Amino acid sequence: MKKVNKKINAAIIVIGNEILSGRTRDINVMNLSKWLNELGVKVEEVRIVPDNEVAIVHTVNFLKKRFKYIFTTGGIGPTHDDITSKSIAKAFKLKYGKHKEAYKLLENYYGTKNFSIGRQKMAMMPINASLILNPSSGAPGFVVGNVHCLPGVPSILKSMLGSLNNKIKGGKKILSKTISIQTVESEIAKSLEKIQIKFKKVDIGSYPFFRLGKIGVSIVIRSPHKKKIDDCYKEIVSFLKNKKIKIIGTE
Amino acid sequence: MKKVNKKINAAIIVIGNEILSGRTRDINVMNLSKWLNELGVKVEEVRIVPDNEVAIVHTVNFLKKRFKYIFTTGGIGPTHDDITSKSIAKAFKLKYGKHKEAYKLLENYYGTKNFSIGRQKMAMMPINASLILNPSSGAPGFVVGNVHCLPGVPSILKSMLGSLNNKIKGGKKILSKTISIQTVESEIAKSLEKIQIKFKKVDIGSYPFFRLGKIGVSIVIRSPHKKKIDDCYKEIVSFLKNKKIKIIGTE
Repeated sequence: MKKVNKKINAAIIVIGNEILSGRTRDINVMNLSKWLNELGVKVEEVRIVPDNEVAIVHTVNFLKKRFKYIFTTGGIGPTHDDITSKSIAKAFKLKYGKHKEAYKLLENYYGTKNFSIGRQKMAMMPINASLILNPSSGAPGFVVGNVHCLPGVPSILKSMLGSLNNKIKGGKKILSKTISIQTVESEIAKSLEKIQIKFKKVDIGSYPFFRLGKIGVSIVIRSPHKKKIDDCYKEIVSFLKNKKIKIIGTE
Repeated sequence: MKKVNKKINAAIIVIGNEILSGRTRDINVMNLSKWLNELGVKVEEVRIVPDNEVAIVHTVNFLKKRFKYIFTTGGIGPTHDDITSKSIAKAFKLKYGKHKEAYKLLENYYGTKNFSIGRQKMAMMPINASLILNPSSGAPGFVVGNVHCLPGVPSILKSMLGSLNNKIKGGKKILSKTISIQTVESEIAKSLEKIQIKFKKVDIGSYPFFRLGKIGVSIVIRSPHKKKIDDCYKEIVSFLKNKKIKIIGTE
């Protein structure tokens, strides 16, 4: 079996005061992580930073050396608080200006008559960046080095991931299996720990839930190796049976 | 007017593979941020890190020197993947062991007969930590230095904030006013930028939305100074009227 390259990882930088203030509940991290999982890329860190150039430049420069892929969300729109493009140019010491291809795209999208100064700002970015096409609303994202800059509006972000599918070179897809049971975590803690020690290459997570007035635990097994997940799964099911713990569902 | 101390800030560390994998959509950041806003504490950074001791220790040690308050969420339960308490002890070079008060609390909560080894693990933490009481499910959180460790289950976390209200010394509450309008961002970008330059002590954010098939923008004005928000608000409303842009709602 091909060895999984441990370096196929990613970090996400969420840029936006609205997330830090609690006004908006982020969903882009979940969507990006699920998409990257499918491509065999493991998200290992997320940072949420304000609309502040110093914070963005520092965060990007720190993380871009440590992770294979960086994704930023937010701050590429036309208003004064959209400072991601300029900050990325600064982080990479690249010229910031009118990106010819982006300008053309936007001019075509809006029509010459409606291509206002406000809209033209969305063509301002590191001038040699590669574009990430936007099938929803015209304004493209862009890639510089290993940093992929996407918008903050979740539906638009999602619509742009398709065009990146072939550009992200992932490893083996990370698989998972979930067993939901009717018990409390403390009842399974010891046995689960033993199994985790035995299956070193598998991540076993234990997550309590409270649904429809019922308490329970979801045990999640994650690994790129299907065989290891299956073996681990069997062992968990077997100890649950021994302990007479009810399995509510598996997925 | 009393000057706002710029240092009254916070960082949140979300600990959990389930957030990074996309399995779970975090809501604790939003809840903590809103609560801290009310107390006059500004959340300036969030980091989401895996259930990994090195990552937790590094992140805690880096952030605790840079922010007045640190909040961690997740990883204080009874299972093998709950390693926050041990990691915090390590970060602070404190003795990790059975916390007497926590042990008593838990023993009372469960009753001596049902106080299993699994449950006893939840009394393991830096032995001199101050406790954060848990009215929902017994197991306490704890405070070491400026680091406040809370659980990952959102409903339990929320129920524990009350007991912290008097312990967090905030500054002036950060107020906000929102104007939702029927237009696109590029139409207001230039005017809004001018107003932002004029009102330096106010944060003006612009957030496009797509609701019920309608597009619009929410302009959010934030500041601890009510008068400044009111003045800024008037100026924005005035330019919207001049531009004949429809105000859908304010809050």
